[in-house]
Amino acid sequence: MKMEYMTADEFALAVKNNPLIILPIGATEAHGSHLPLCTDTIQPEYIAEEISRVKTNVIVAPSLNFGLHSSTKNMPGTINLTFDTLRAVVYDILTSLYERGVKQFLLMSGHAGSGHMTALSEACKRVVSETDAKIMLFTDYDIAERCPDLPVMKGDGHGGCLETSRILAIRPDLVRESRPVGSYIYCNSVVQKDASVAMPAGVAGDTSGASAELGRTINGYIVETVIRMIDDEFRI
Amino acid sequence: MKMEYMTADEFALAVKNNPLIILPIGATEAHGSHLPLCTDTIQPEYIAEEISRVKTNVIVAPSLNFGLHSSTKNMPGTINLTFDTLRAVVYDILTSLYERGVKQFLLMSGHAGSGHMTALSEACKRVVSETDAKIMLFTDYDIAERCPDLPVMKGDGHGGCLETSRILAIRPDLVRESRPVGSYIYCNSVVQKDASVAMPAGVAGDTSGASAELGRTINGYIVETVIRMIDDEFRI
Amino acid sequence: MKMEYMTADEFALAVKNNPLIILPIGATEAHGSHLPLCTDTIQPEYIAEEISRVKTNVIVAPSLNFGLHSSTKNMPGTINLTFDTLRAVVYDILTSLYERGVKQFLLMSGHAGSGHMTALSEACKRVVSETDAKIMLFTDYDIAERCPDLPVMKGDGHGGCLETSRILAIRPDLVRESRPVGSYIYCNSVVQKDASVAMPAGVAGDTSGASAELGRTINGYIVETVIRMIDDEFRI
Amino acid sequence: MKMEYMTADEFALAVKNNPLIILPIGATEAHGSHLPLCTDTIQPEYIAEEISRVKTNVIVAPSLNFGLHSSTKNMPGTINLTFDTLRAVVYDILTSLYERGVKQFLLMSGHAGSGHMTALSEACKRVVSETDAKIMLFTDYDIAERCPDLPVMKGDGHGGCLETSRILAIRPDLVRESRPVGSYIYCNSVVQKDASVAMPAGVAGDTSGASAELGRTINGYIVETVIRMIDDEFRI
Amino acid sequence: MKMEYMTADEFALAVKNNPLIILPIGATEAHGSHLPLCTDTIQPEYIAEEISRVKTNVIVAPSLNFGLHSSTKNMPGTINLTFDTLRAVVYDILTSLYERGVKQFLLMSGHAGSGHMTALSEACKRVVSETDAKIMLFTDYDIAERCPDLPVMKGDGHGGCLETSRILAIRPDLVRESRPVGSYIYCNSVVQKDASVAMPAGVAGDTSGASAELGRTINGYIVETVIRMIDDEFRI
Amino acid sequence: MKMEYMTADEFALAVKNNPLIILPIGATEAHGSHLPLCTDTIQPEYIAEEISRVKTNVIVAPSLNFGLHSSTKNMPGTINLTFDTLRAVVYDILTSLYERGVKQFLLMSGHAGSGHMTALSEACKRVVSETDAKIMLFTDYDIAERCPDLPVMKGDGHGGCLETSRILAIRPDLVRESRPVGSYIYCNSVVQKDASVAMPAGVAGDTSGASAELGRTINGYIVETVIRMIDDEFRI
Repeated sequence: MKMEYMTADEFALAVKNNPLIILPIGATEAHGSHLPLCTDTIQPEYIAEEISRVKTNVIVAPSLNFGLHSSTKNMPGTINLTFDTLRAVVYDILTSLYERGVKQFLLMSGHAGSGHMTALSEACKRVVSETDAKIMLFTDYDIAERCPDLPVMKGDGHGGCLETSRILAIRPDLVRESRPVGSYIYCNSVVQKDASVAMPAGVAGDTSGASAELGRTINGYIVETVIRMIDDEFRI
Repeated sequence: MKMEYMTADEFALAVKNNPLIILPIGATEAHGSHLPLCTDTIQPEYIAEEISRVKTNVIVAPSLNFGLHSSTKNMPGTINLTFDTLRAVVYDILTSLYERGVKQFLLMSGHAGSGHMTALSEACKRVVSETDAKIMLFTDYDIAERCPDLPVMKGDGHGGCLETSRILAIRPDLVRESRPVGSYIYCNSVVQKDASVAMPAGVAGDTSGASAELGRTINGYIVETVIRMIDDEFRI
Repeated sequence: MKMEYMTADEFALAVKNNPLIILPIGATEAHGSHLPLCTDTIQPEYIAEEISRVKTNVIVAPSLNFGLHSSTKNMPGTINLTFDTLRAVVYDILTSLYERGVKQFLLMSGHAGSGHMTALSEACKRVVSETDAKIMLFTDYDIAERCPDLPVMKGDGHGGCLETSRILAIRPDLVRESRPVGSYIYCNSVVQKDASVAMPAGVAGDTSGASAELGRTINGYIVETVIRMIDDEFRI
Repeated sequence: MKMEYMTADEFALAVKNNPLIILPIGATEAHGSHLPLCTDTIQPEYIAEEISRVKTNVIVAPSLNFGLHSSTKNMPGTINLTFDTLRAVVYDILTSLYERGVKQFLLMSGHAGSGHMTALSEACKRVVSETDAKIMLFTDYDIAERCPDLPVMKGDGHGGCLETSRILAIRPDLVRESRPVGSYIYCNSVVQKDASVAMPAGVAGDTSGASAELGRTINGYIVETVIRMIDDEFRI
Repeated sequence: MKMEYMTADEFALAVKNNPLIILPIGATEAHGSHLPLCTDTIQPEYIAEEISRVKTNVIVAPSLNFGLHSSTKNMPGTINLTFDTLRAVVYDILTSLYERGVKQFLLMSGHAGSGHMTALSEACKRVVSETDAKIMLFTDYDIAERCPDLPVMKGDGHGGCLETSRILAIRPDLVRESRPVGSYIYCNSVVQKDASVAMPAGVAGDTSGASAELGRTINGYIVETVIRMIDDEFRI
Repeated sequence: MKMEYMTADEFALAVKNNPLIILPIGATEAHGSHLPLCTDTIQPEYIAEEISRVKTNVIVAPSLNFGLHSSTKNMPGTINLTFDTLRAVVYDILTSLYERGVKQFLLMSGHAGSGHMTALSEACKRVVSETDAKIMLFTDYDIAERCPDLPVMKGDGHGGCLETSRILAIRPDLVRESRPVGSYIYCNSVVQKDASVAMPAGVAGDTSGASAELGRTINGYIVETVIRMIDDEFRI
């Protein structure tokens, strides 16, 4: 059930049933020569929609299409929110929904950067400290990495084999033909003026082994895992 | 051309051509018993896409799906950003794109509230004062109201005949069967704790006369008008 | 009754009677070649004092002499507060008076710019959401425009015939001999680096028809209208 | 020359002569049972006007009628700005005038509280660090205390003999008949929830000896001293 | 009892006894050619430790090693916090301890600048307004100046005879051999771009008369005075 | 060379040699029943001092004694700065030193929490974007974990075997006799009102195997590693 397509009355009715609202946190971010800028939006949106097919008392809120970036911040196509802005926008969305009666939230972020996740976490902590809302927060990327069927993918990361496979499974029409290879460069913990030096190829990992089949396996594992987490924690 | 589907390299190439970026400012807002919560997102997105069909050097950025609301703030389904948050997120998006080389922007907002528009305007003014970016900012609602083919629609406003017609033309599948009638209540300029008293029916106007045909006329007029404004002001 | 001339004890006594406090929001702003910089301060101060003559349980607070400006921001003599500052100063004044026991407020602004009014509105909304204060907020300019005895004044606005007439009625000694003519320039909704391009003559309208008599008519209409609004809404 | 009565053109002309702008910082503050709430506004305004009679290249800006208070904060009639608001409003006024071409400023504050003066000082320091403006900042109260003709007035302070005498000289019609006596209470440096415990009578000192003659002596000394300071520091 | 050396359990136990927490506010600041940068940290730390020897229910928190400076801000070795940062860090420390159960606080600042003290005071006032904490705030410098055994030291101040003597008594190994002489320069209340012009020698006073013996006398007087203030105000 | 013991002149002289300033970021945080609250301050201070013995052109700044905490935030003895405060204080310290001529910085944090590290990182990134300073930022905890001589310590973390050993090597007098055992609890990514549920024993790991000898090995490895990183990146 996508919130954006509901009317006000339908939403009011649904809230009476104490639903879980999933807020997909997307991004507009450079993802190598082969993946679209919306890569980190597509992934959590897809997982959220799959979950809402299985769990009827789940509502998928409109995505936030922008996040906070570090190594890709200066790459073409990346749109970057500052820490304070990202924290504020997520706080406002959660607070606004809470004031409309929603008590259960799942924030699923496609992007997994530590600054980005801290901003989300700070917003959620504030809401939790001020209300009786229950909030689950994670990046589906972290769950994907724990998928038992993953092949060995040394140094795989941003825009790598894992992500490429997932997009091949979700929106193959958006994946270009190139299959770049890249890696993170260790910088002795020096804070960089332009952090893109830490990932010169724009991706981390070898994407040549990516496949829609692997993507489906990973996506399936995430959906299954998140449903179990929801069942453990929320009453819906 | 939708930015979200482009790769980083494609975006970099496109920016070299000094394009106009259209940023649709959407909303998640109660729109009466008949219109979906995404009504104010759908409209500027549709206009932006129509324009990008005609004008090749136009890129449509991912929408911001949240705005600032007043009379509908406490109605079911409305997600509200504070003034400072809305101003910050728009400032960050514009600044980030500017730093990636974009110099020409069109912000088109589906929602037309005065606080909302002031927040957008404050963000744009700051960017204009700090850079050499050129920014056009308006709500397509204001242009719609100037459409010469509009019938007399006394008191038509939020979720009224004009908006209903436009959504009937864009996404008829999202319009429910009810055709509510409502109006704004004058409150002697008293600042209300719950501003929904100013629009008790959740809409302003009589939606019974709404039609897809009228919607197409209005949308066509907006597209044509905005293209003329773009031709007047931008070099693309 | 002017608050500034009262002692603390007199004010304490007056507050026991649950008075209405009128806070005139003035400005220091360029108003053409013929009107003084305090034009927007004089007008609401005059209306407030006239009302306090009729309504005994009204106290007129000291004016705020500075506002937020757009098209005149860069003109000589304009002093501009930022949005955040204006919002903060009004919030502090209201909160401070509320903590001293005042529950009823009328903010009357001489300046009518949309950014300025939004800043005032944001401050008032916050106070209303946090307290049980009742606040009326408007610009007397808007009421003036609804005066039934106004002649046709096409394009009349800032520093125009209406304002010139009002100052001629209130402080004729402050009006210079020139009678400028000007108009707003439409800028295709482009956000301007220097918004004074939108009003090159510094005034909007033709001031040649201004007269003290018309000013008295307008001022009388405003006083009468505001008294009726006060009677409708406040218990004093 | 009062800025508020000038037109934009007159102000533009005056600025070409590199004038000194005096900004009187007033207050709305409880001042005992005998003095009006505007006591701290009247004093610097009077001094500023006297100076502008002697020094032709001086412009007196509209007063800020509100300040930051500590011991009187909770007394009837006191309007209190927070530290951040006071700092912001003064910063905005100075910056705005600087952008209009003014380079020389004198801020004269009637209120002398240390928090209040720090807020003014922080604003001025920021302007000085960002521009080539020259700013003089003081409270006329401090100068008054150095007047060689002052009688011994042990513990005289807020609303005391000195201030009462000055108001008797400036606006005798605003001074009531009571002549209160009070003193500051030492609180072992404990930060008080309600700091009015530190000045229970609302005044500090014995006002019975106050006289218009003494007030004229003090005011004359201040005018003379400030003119000397202006001559030492500014080129006007 | 130094808090930093306690374990969590020991601290929890101590808090049950409703202790007084002393928070030494230090600084890293230029103090002439003879005194170390930590001069303003050493002094309140020493006094706090002496008090905690006598008063068993006193806990000395870790020092804040940074403050807000004016005339020494641009001198070598001075580390400066802005007003907002200093206010925030002290507010956070107090709030955090209050949430852990502490209700009684003594903030003792080595540095005595008025901006610095206002920042501390603003933080304390906010805590006092929001909680039932009791807070005493002062600079030990002010108490030192009231020591009855002080010789006449005209113009003694920053890094002068008083401070030199105190450090000679506390950490003689940190005092270099030079004994500078300096004074404050009166600047007609002009706000300086570089406030070090107000104290060109980096010290105020004649340090040639400084002695460890005088320092011990002063320190003893402070300890005794503060213990009396604590006995008057706190229940420990 | 400890900055706090230097005079202004000595610091000025040292800065001419383009030194590296090490800023130890400490904390006041519950560390189990056996370790003192200053555990995270002692560790980076010790490493910094060891380095400054070997590298002569290194200056150790005064420690910041407070950090940002999550799972221990509500435990006895933890003092917590908010994200914004920690970011601001570090930004101010770095900026202040940069303005005094320092260009090379090493921030070494004893605490390793992700929110804490993000706050430090945000401050450093801002300084790097605004200046030509070079900043290295890390937590010595992360380096310690890479020590090749570490025994297998499953689930070792906060206050565990690694940290206990290090404090036993640095300040054995501060380690109590208990040797607690604890672990992190997985919470399905639910944002907790009181995050101490995630570490109920207050420590993670089994401290029974801790030894001063292991601590010396770890500390030696950190010193050696950091010196190599300094040699790679800084010119001193």
